[in-house]
Amino acid sequence: MERVAGLWAVVPAGGAGTRLWPLSRRAAPKFLLDLTGGGRTLLQSTWDRLVPLAGQDGVLVVTGEAHADAVRRQLPELAAADLLLEPSPRDSMPAIGLAAAVLRERQPDALLGSFAADHVVRDEVAFGEAVRQAAVAARDGLVATIGIEPTGPATGFGYIRTGEPLGLPAAPAAHRAAAFVEKPDAATAAGYLADGGYRWNAGMFVVRAAVLLERLEAEHPRLHAGLVRIGRAWDGAEHGKVLGEVWPTLTRISIDHAVAEPAAADGAVAVVPADLGWDDVGDFAALAALTGGEGPVRVLGPGSDVVAVDSAGLLVPGSGRLVAVAGVPDVVIVDTPDAVLVTTLAAAQQVKAVVEALSAAGRTDLL
Amino acid sequence: MERVAGLWAVVPAGGAGTRLWPLSRRAAPKFLLDLTGGGRTLLQSTWDRLVPLAGQDGVLVVTGEAHADAVRRQLPELAAADLLLEPSPRDSMPAIGLAAAVLRERQPDALLGSFAADHVVRDEVAFGEAVRQAAVAARDGLVATIGIEPTGPATGFGYIRTGEPLGLPAAPAAHRAAAFVEKPDAATAAGYLADGGYRWNAGMFVVRAAVLLERLEAEHPRLHAGLVRIGRAWDGAEHGKVLGEVWPTLTRISIDHAVAEPAAADGAVAVVPADLGWDDVGDFAALAALTGGEGPVRVLGPGSDVVAVDSAGLLVPGSGRLVAVAGVPDVVIVDTPDAVLVTTLAAAQQVKAVVEALSAAGRTDLL
Repeated sequence: MERVAGLWAVVPAGGAGTRLWPLSRRAAPKFLLDLTGGGRTLLQSTWDRLVPLAGQDGVLVVTGEAHADAVRRQLPELAAADLLLEPSPRDSMPAIGLAAAVLRERQPDALLGSFAADHVVRDEVAFGEAVRQAAVAARDGLVATIGIEPTGPATGFGYIRTGEPLGLPAAPAAHRAAAFVEKPDAATAAGYLADGGYRWNAGMFVVRAAVLLERLEAEHPRLHAGLVRIGRAWDGAEHGKVLGEVWPTLTRISIDHAVAEPAAADGAVAVVPADLGWDDVGDFAALAALTGGEGPVRVLGPGSDVVAVDSAGLLVPGSGRLVAVAGVPDVVIVDTPDAVLVTTLAAAQQVKAVVEALSAAGRTDLL
Repeated sequence: MERVAGLWAVVPAGGAGTRLWPLSRRAAPKFLLDLTGGGRTLLQSTWDRLVPLAGQDGVLVVTGEAHADAVRRQLPELAAADLLLEPSPRDSMPAIGLAAAVLRERQPDALLGSFAADHVVRDEVAFGEAVRQAAVAARDGLVATIGIEPTGPATGFGYIRTGEPLGLPAAPAAHRAAAFVEKPDAATAAGYLADGGYRWNAGMFVVRAAVLLERLEAEHPRLHAGLVRIGRAWDGAEHGKVLGEVWPTLTRISIDHAVAEPAAADGAVAVVPADLGWDDVGDFAALAALTGGEGPVRVLGPGSDVVAVDSAGLLVPGSGRLVAVAGVPDVVIVDTPDAVLVTTLAAAQQVKAVVEALSAAGRTDLL
């Protein structure tokens, strides 16, 4: 894979992965887990995917202080200066904006590519090519995003409506993004799929750090000012003092709302459609689809700990106990040392309600 | 409850309860478990139900040597001489015939009542009255059985077709039994229910020990001879020698096939129809129906170990872990320290296939 000149890859590593409980916990969120059974966690796989494009010294991870040690253990090659720790979670714009502000101080021309720590990308060659083309558009001053070719009428993702081709010789796939649209209902999603002009918004952005900050300044000047102040202090003696003062004042907002949507309305967003084998592993139904194996029952974990009779779905043994299922045509069983979850692929989104019930019952030991 | 004159209650305590795995195990079969959450095991509840009718010295338990210690622990009032240990399981006729042969030696006029150790009877008053009327018919030389009023078109039980009333003044409910019929298919069971003349065969018999042995002699003379030989030696010095020689030669056969069906064909069986709140707790669907509680989810065990969202069925926490279920409209989850089972009320009979699969895989540690 060829390096993408000037690219710094930023990996916001946050999000609880509530719908993957009891695999995913507060102390061990989704990005720290090996959900594909391949021996690498989602964070490690993200690292593996980005190092060829940005170099080992070109990857920054932004995460909460609670996860600092786990990230260091999982990514021993990550330089200390490239681990940016947030004192508290304040949504994606402060997280990515922090990286932009720090990067611009270190390298004024830096091209920032932001890629979530907890997604799966199966086609790394297509991914590399999409990032390369997005970088071409980003060097032209656009906010470039990668638009995932939908494989179904998903209602769990936002969509990007594709406009006319940009006509960039080095980025032939790049189009103007006409608009970002919110997660649709099922009928609307089916319409998007039939239309053919909509792609999933996977939250992947490539943009010059300076452009991102300028766009932020125009839309949210106070948030911009705070981030710039933190960025200037980051590598200096005042780091702790400034971060402690300013971070708690930053607006909680997503990068989509803060920058991407207004920029699209200005015609300043490029979208590179791509078929990456991408998945955000948003729930156990998504995890089942990712989990290999023959037959109607997918097993993530030791197959010797499973007996399935006349059943289909996903089994995740994980406590050394036997997991047995009989006569359940659509089942998800997740076995851990302190909790066992049973749901169905169809009801996978309802796992969030279990976590809410545990939280309401004060069972923080299980969250 | 009034004593039933001359009654000896025999409790065959066997059967693996395969369909209740992983609650029920080889080393801890169904009759040794407290399946109702009431604090007494099925065996203990059977004892509690029989002592008022037969007296504490009038209850005999027939079980395998493997369960001798557990039975002694659960029934400390059971006299040593009243615990009859089978060297190996050989079906119900040898088990009950053994008790008959031993009893006849001890008390030639003994009236033997046989009642399984692993059934539930909720109406003990009705049970006592049914046994009393069955004893009246038995004293007349009949093989008397209690016929359970069906509450639905069950396919898991055999049925008894009821004939004309016997006209016994002291047993007004007693009828002649026209025939025993095998477990029916669903359409046949529905027909039996509509007909109104069929009762479930719960395997409850009251009969003079001498009559039982005479009937057995007529049908299975070799089995009879073996049992008589064992019965004569049972309370003497030759016990072990004779038992070791003869027991392994006894025919494996059920009491229904060996005696009850031929006797019914001779017009020698009485049936006392009764509504006892009886259940054989044959699978988790039956257990769910027995398990109390409000709402669509029944819990057998500590409710604090359960979170159920938009689900219905039976949850059996049992390892101290949290059992969570989301969006499963018909679920059974049974959690034990070394195995967790998931099935549905509708598929509850398929649990047997799980046990067979474990057996085939050599996982005897889990059986």
